[in-house]
Amino acid sequence: MAKKKAGEAEPSGRLLDALRVPAGAVDLGKFDTRAATGFSGTKEEGKVALDALGPEVSDFQERLYAEGRKGSRRSVLLVLQGMDTSGKGGVIRHGAGLMDPQGLRITSFKAPTPTEKRRGFLWRIRQALPGPGLVGIFDRSHYEDVLIARVRNLVAPPVWNRRYEQINEFEAELAEQGITMLKCFLHISSEEQKLRLAARLDDPTKHWKYNPGDVDERELWPAYTEAYEAALENCNGPAAPWYVIPSDRKWYRNWAVTTLLLETFRDLDPQWPKADFDIEAEKTRVAAD
Amino acid sequence: MAKKKAGEAEPSGRLLDALRVPAGAVDLGKFDTRAATGFSGTKEEGKVALDALGPEVSDFQERLYAEGRKGSRRSVLLVLQGMDTSGKGGVIRHGAGLMDPQGLRITSFKAPTPTEKRRGFLWRIRQALPGPGLVGIFDRSHYEDVLIARVRNLVAPPVWNRRYEQINEFEAELAEQGITMLKCFLHISSEEQKLRLAARLDDPTKHWKYNPGDVDERELWPAYTEAYEAALENCNGPAAPWYVIPSDRKWYRNWAVTTLLLETFRDLDPQWPKADFDIEAEKTRVAAD
Repeated sequence: MAKKKAGEAEPSGRLLDALRVPAGAVDLGKFDTRAATGFSGTKEEGKVALDALGPEVSDFQERLYAEGRKGSRRSVLLVLQGMDTSGKGGVIRHGAGLMDPQGLRITSFKAPTPTEKRRGFLWRIRQALPGPGLVGIFDRSHYEDVLIARVRNLVAPPVWNRRYEQINEFEAELAEQGITMLKCFLHISSEEQKLRLAARLDDPTKHWKYNPGDVDERELWPAYTEAYEAALENCNGPAAPWYVIPSDRKWYRNWAVTTLLLETFRDLDPQWPKADFDIEAEKTRVAAD
Repeated sequence: MAKKKAGEAEPSGRLLDALRVPAGAVDLGKFDTRAATGFSGTKEEGKVALDALGPEVSDFQERLYAEGRKGSRRSVLLVLQGMDTSGKGGVIRHGAGLMDPQGLRITSFKAPTPTEKRRGFLWRIRQALPGPGLVGIFDRSHYEDVLIARVRNLVAPPVWNRRYEQINEFEAELAEQGITMLKCFLHISSEEQKLRLAARLDDPTKHWKYNPGDVDERELWPAYTEAYEAALENCNGPAAPWYVIPSDRKWYRNWAVTTLLLETFRDLDPQWPKADFDIEAEKTRVAAD
């Protein structure tokens, strides 16, 4: 039997299948934050494997973009959620960074402004949806409206309770519009977060990323976990399933999300658009020019 | 005497100085489209040299971004102009692609919509300016309003004639706001454009990029050249000078623009923000948590 190549997905199949959250109740404690599902190599091999995904991911992205320029409505939307320091930015830098920035539409959602609040929680999300052929990336998303909003009592329970169904309807609508969502929860342990906060304090080039409020937020870890479990359970329909990414190991997290993106592209299988002009006639015109 | 290393700028100094358009009348015929100013290596060495710029460019970009998160108003705006096929997209893909996409704000300007037209030609440009700490990239820009608008008589001569001064005032305002502009004209020869159009026709993966109208536009090459010369001459103030990038060789073009960006970053010299909290107290809090 041939030795399995480092970085190759498990023989059982695709990473999309392996990391998908099964329907039903979700207990995040049962998801190992240090796993390297689908990858059997070392950290160094993981970094090499990530870079090796670049050409294929980039090629698919350009095909999708080209399709979008010629009438296709399809696009991809990567949603990144996770506790502070879970590495949403790192995934964008190292994974999305493999793609052409012209085809990306990245939005980082902060606390909503008063204007945004008045317009309903999905309004600003709709403004940020990727256009045809683009790869949208949400660093946080409408899920904050059932996470921090729930944990911090920013709205009354009946309000956030209704939102799960509103989100499901919204995401079904996006699927009908041709937006393929890839919702990733970057799953870290509380211990790993503590190490990462300490590391930020030790490195003067990372002080700007440190926010003392993050330590206060750690006291709400169990409440956030519960809110995430509810979101992953209630908004996990077939049109927009959730994936849990073991994220204690940064290199694995980056490889895994990028691999999920690649597999999503493969499913979409975008094609180079056919010429909408007479190729031979144009060759003659250019040559005669 | 030590042999000059491939990719090293000429001993005379910086590429910013070498490629800057001197004040006064501009004759584009005097700018060699195939030059490799400041670079003495081969094509392959040029590609390696471009990738080698990645870590430094990326580090500066993150410092600028970090500053922007902590109160600095500074940003960089790369403006790319050039004839069809001159490679504005290629520069973004290969040069800007070295940076973290989270810190980029890329805008591609097409023909203005009726709403945009009603609001004056600078309105949509202002909407697309990079926020603090970001690197903005314009694929075409307000210069189209003195280029195609002039060549195609989209507005009366007194209208486009006034725009040079309006642009100068606008760009001076941006400089005061902390936006450092890097305006690059990607200079190709008419013969090179012909080769590139023919190459697009020969490659089915590039048919989507081919537009028969581009061949018609070639008849206006002299008029566009004249319009570019006027723009480069009239809007070349010290706050926002023009750079002419010899662009018949794609690898050189990508290396040159990225090098200009790197030198611009070096001039700005962004610094990691100092902690705005008590580092030792925070270390204790995290450790005790």
